[in-house]
Amino acid sequence: MTADDRFVVATYVVEDEEKQLRKRADGIAIGLTVGSWTDLPAATQERMRPYCGRVEDITVEERLPDGRVRARIAIGYPVVNFPARIPALLTTVFGKLSMDGKIRLAGLHLPASFARAFPGPKFGAAGVRQVLGVHDRPLLMSIFKSCIGLPMDELVAAFTEQALGGADLIKDDEIFFNESLASPEDRVRAYREAARRTEAETGQRVLYAVNLTGPVTELRDRARRLAELGAGALLINAFAYGLDVLQALAEDPEVSVPLMAHPAVAGAMYAAPGYGISASVLFGQLLRLGGADIVIYPSPYGTVTLEAEESGQVLHHLRADNGLKPALPAPSAGIHPGLVPLLVRDYGMDVIVNAGGGIHGHPGGARAGARAFMAAIRAVVAGRSLREAAEDSPELAAAIQQWGVREA
Amino acid sequence: MTADDRFVVATYVVEDEEKQLRKRADGIAIGLTVGSWTDLPAATQERMRPYCGRVEDITVEERLPDGRVRARIAIGYPVVNFPARIPALLTTVFGKLSMDGKIRLAGLHLPASFARAFPGPKFGAAGVRQVLGVHDRPLLMSIFKSCIGLPMDELVAAFTEQALGGADLIKDDEIFFNESLASPEDRVRAYREAARRTEAETGQRVLYAVNLTGPVTELRDRARRLAELGAGALLINAFAYGLDVLQALAEDPEVSVPLMAHPAVAGAMYAAPGYGISASVLFGQLLRLGGADIVIYPSPYGTVTLEAEESGQVLHHLRADNGLKPALPAPSAGIHPGLVPLLVRDYGMDVIVNAGGGIHGHPGGARAGARAFMAAIRAVVAGRSLREAAEDSPELAAAIQQWGVREA
Ligand SMILES: [Mg+2]
Ligand SMILES: [Mg+2]
Repeated sequence: MTADDRFVVATYVVEDEEKQLRKRADGIAIGLTVGSWTDLPAATQERMRPYCGRVEDITVEERLPDGRVRARIAIGYPVVNFPARIPALLTTVFGKLSMDGKIRLAGLHLPASFARAFPGPKFGAAGVRQVLGVHDRPLLMSIFKSCIGLPMDELVAAFTEQALGGADLIKDDEIFFNESLASPEDRVRAYREAARRTEAETGQRVLYAVNLTGPVTELRDRARRLAELGAGALLINAFAYGLDVLQALAEDPEVSVPLMAHPAVAGAMYAAPGYGISASVLFGQLLRLGGADIVIYPSPYGTVTLEAEESGQVLHHLRADNGLKPALPAPSAGIHPGLVPLLVRDYGMDVIVNAGGGIHGHPGGARAGARAFMAAIRAVVAGRSLREAAEDSPELAAAIQQWGVREA
Repeated sequence: MTADDRFVVATYVVEDEEKQLRKRADGIAIGLTVGSWTDLPAATQERMRPYCGRVEDITVEERLPDGRVRARIAIGYPVVNFPARIPALLTTVFGKLSMDGKIRLAGLHLPASFARAFPGPKFGAAGVRQVLGVHDRPLLMSIFKSCIGLPMDELVAAFTEQALGGADLIKDDEIFFNESLASPEDRVRAYREAARRTEAETGQRVLYAVNLTGPVTELRDRARRLAELGAGALLINAFAYGLDVLQALAEDPEVSVPLMAHPAVAGAMYAAPGYGISASVLFGQLLRLGGADIVIYPSPYGTVTLEAEESGQVLHHLRADNGLKPALPAPSAGIHPGLVPLLVRDYGMDVIVNAGGGIHGHPGGARAGARAFMAAIRAVVAGRSLREAAEDSPELAAAIQQWGVREA
């Protein structure tokens, strides 16, 4: 496939009669740009040409039992047609088209100049490490088990246990919207004090990722306020709020903390084979363009999974050389200490080991659960096997007894 | 299914082992609310009970060839857990769950008090009619065929043709993001003048629905400005921008014009059987809660279709008695004058007949195309057949010759 830097190229997987493919591709290229073409006078065509889409490629991938084919169609959309904002990009390449039967937006190719017009991560992987002062190992993130309904003192106690166990980051539950017992501002203040105490004890910095909630029109002000109050990072339900909200936060210099994108609701778009938008576009490309420093998405290990190949493509895009800072992957669901070797094999050292049940479900409680993870992380960095490391760490030994080990 | 007004009840369609259903339902009810339950002390349970979800119903619908079943699971989520904002609602009921394999959010039941906490349509069907001064017939909306790349004088000429033909509303293409030749503000000003001229000639009011574009942080100010300048309505790519943007516009008294929601990108969520979110939730419930006065969504007649049953459920929800104003349906794609009897049969008189190709593709051009629609609309209101009406309307006769008639 060829492409030049005047075009965003979207690749779709469709199922159709082979002989219909060319007509369908032409219909997309014209219908989603200038609206009509062949019936225009030559002079008008000349004037409209810079705005007209073009068919880049049509490749038949598979012949289906019913006589039709599965094919990839690549369409180039002139970048002059839309600004570097995700709603404009998505509406153009998969707005009306998303309703055209069985069709999947499988991939996007963005010209470097277009990608660089997006903010991308403000901190990126290196920036998050710098804030934490941790450069030589995977990071550990602990997820609150319960949030809703707990009074502040119990939340602070839970925060403290996770921090004392060694978590680098502690994040809210993404479903934490009730503000009656503990508002985001109150949590940031209370956890900031708790973190001072635990940092004095352990010498380890801990960042609290607060769930950014409220009406969309107030999110930017609230993000600034939470950052000012001492939030370590902002957790954003980016697909529920809209990806332009993420971009607006990334572009705002006063939002001076890392942005952590949660994948909530994204499964409605990527989970069905042959429909919707691929996870690599959603998590790998759009979240990074929009400025997520940390991208939470399904690991290939747990029950909430993403197919290994697609998961690999997400990772590729989070780090691909496109002029923007690389984002940190936080593969999630089903993570326990025994998986750390596999995580490092699959994601490298620049990964956030993100666990909820794998920390709180530890027989010794959350503090022991976080310790078990840190022991596993240090073992992998040192090139030791987990079973060997478990001899020095009763917490890791207990975790292995509970969940087992999958050495890489 | 029973439900009380303390719970939002979400119904999911899942495929699973029958013996797993109860465990899975319990896992959802607890996992997406309080996080844990059975291991909590009794006193803590008592305190957390108001926030804990509950299983409302489990119904096996079909036994699958592989031994599993297709079932509906209904889960009640306490309304105290989230405010009346769509991102909070969606993140709770289909955030993480959207990534749990094959599962579809099929329906939502909202307590009346919760629904009424949303703005709903500011104008509603009656309000839009009042603005137009048209009370006794379906409304006609014409869609610009081309927008991108055309200079203002050609856009004004196209607007004028559509208005002279009798369109009540004229809407931008939803992919119109390029502002270099004609910004939204410039279009509103220019079409306002054009509308004054056509209204003087025809005596008929016409509303221009301008595509609301730009960074999300500027949309509300721009919406106010466009309304102030004389926009007739605002076209919003609500799924691309996020549904809370729609709600924020609906809640703003200074955005003093009807809101028209475009379905762009929604196909990524509803199109796949068994996955994602049903069209009736997206178009019928969420868009109305969020405040769309006019809901554009696929008709069951064209190529971009929605299954007839689902389409009927959308319509049901747009008008259901829930304390909010009813929204106007604008079923779209493949609409030509010969379909007007069917449209009125299926949607009643409170419908927007929305056409692009069916107007611009008329052999006599857009003005004749709009006239043909108006002749068809008047015929249906008068109880005349289209063929009979075509004897008095050469434009309708030509349309029928081109596209045929489907009498209801
Ligand atoms: Mg969670
Ligand atoms: Mg259009």
